[in-house]
Amino acid sequence: MTTQTEVRLNEVDIDAVGALVSAVAEDPEKGQTDWSATVTWKGAFRSEVSIRDFDPIPSDEPAGLGGTDTAPNPVEQVLGALGNCLAVGYAANATAAGVEIKDLKIELSGDLNLESFLGLKPGHAGYGGLSVKVHLDSDASDEQLAALHDKVVNSSPVGHTLQNPVPVSIDLA
Amino acid sequence: MTTQTEVRLNEVDIDAVGALVSAVAEDPEKGQTDWSATVTWKGAFRSEVSIRDFDPIPSDEPAGLGGTDTAPNPVEQVLGALGNCLAVGYAANATAAGVEIKDLKIELSGDLNLESFLGLKPGHAGYGGLSVKVHLDSDASDEQLAALHDKVVNSSPVGHTLQNPVPVSIDLA
Repeated sequence: MTTQTEVRLNEVDIDAVGALVSAVAEDPEKGQTDWSATVTWKGAFRSEVSIRDFDPIPSDEPAGLGGTDTAPNPVEQVLGALGNCLAVGYAANATAAGVEIKDLKIELSGDLNLESFLGLKPGHAGYGGLSVKVHLDSDASDEQLAALHDKVVNSSPVGHTLQNPVPVSIDLA
Repeated sequence: MTTQTEVRLNEVDIDAVGALVSAVAEDPEKGQTDWSATVTWKGAFRSEVSIRDFDPIPSDEPAGLGGTDTAPNPVEQVLGALGNCLAVGYAANATAAGVEIKDLKIELSGDLNLESFLGLKPGHAGYGGLSVKVHLDSDASDEQLAALHDKVVNSSPVGHTLQNPVPVSIDLA
């Protein structure tokens, strides 16, 4: 009998994940999801993003880029989104494979040339490339961890969003 | 003489932006920037991202995806990063063009098929596409706003990061 005090591997509700997998396997339409966010400009380079009912999250630019340096900037937020997505991927896939994660820390970095953003040069204004180092502490074998890693990297929504060209339509309403 | 009480158009420190543009125009090496973030897993699908000295920002998944629903999820964070980046672009370019922004709100949405994330199908696990509606309140002419919009869209670091394939290397440390 399952009780509230049952200890879950990696604290993950793997039954909920399994139920979702079954539901989508049975009816692929249920795998089609929509996400949204609203950004409100707050003056200077400050803005905040509202997502569902959560408190707005602030954004700013460092002083060196003309901001008031009150919050991480948008390109740093991209790194955070990627790291958070990978963390979910490791937690989900490790739990499904019966692997305990003792600790997981993900270091992300990226290089970006400002010339296009500053209007000095046409062309790609985005990240040149991203580098991610995953520090995963687990008693699982190297083979298990390599298999886990491959699974995560090959199924990361944010990872794939960054690695592939995604159509973005931006219109003045 | 400049004083602390000087009213800045759109509150933007356009002198700082101008100084950066001049510095990078003179020495393109100065346009080469590096960004970083560290994500720490907190159990289940919760994690948090640490950027510079700012307080860690939490991430989670909705209950329907097996999470504990305590914060926006990574794919929502991507939408936020894009909207925040566009807000900076509008503020910077409007100010440079002498255009006052009275109000700016940006609505973002995207569709994502979970089949690849859930391991049901190989292939693209990321956003299928993103749609952005920009609500810009200004007394500038439609022509000025269209020119501003083009400039922002063609120079957005996060926009270009999403629209173009970016190399991402992810390694177990």
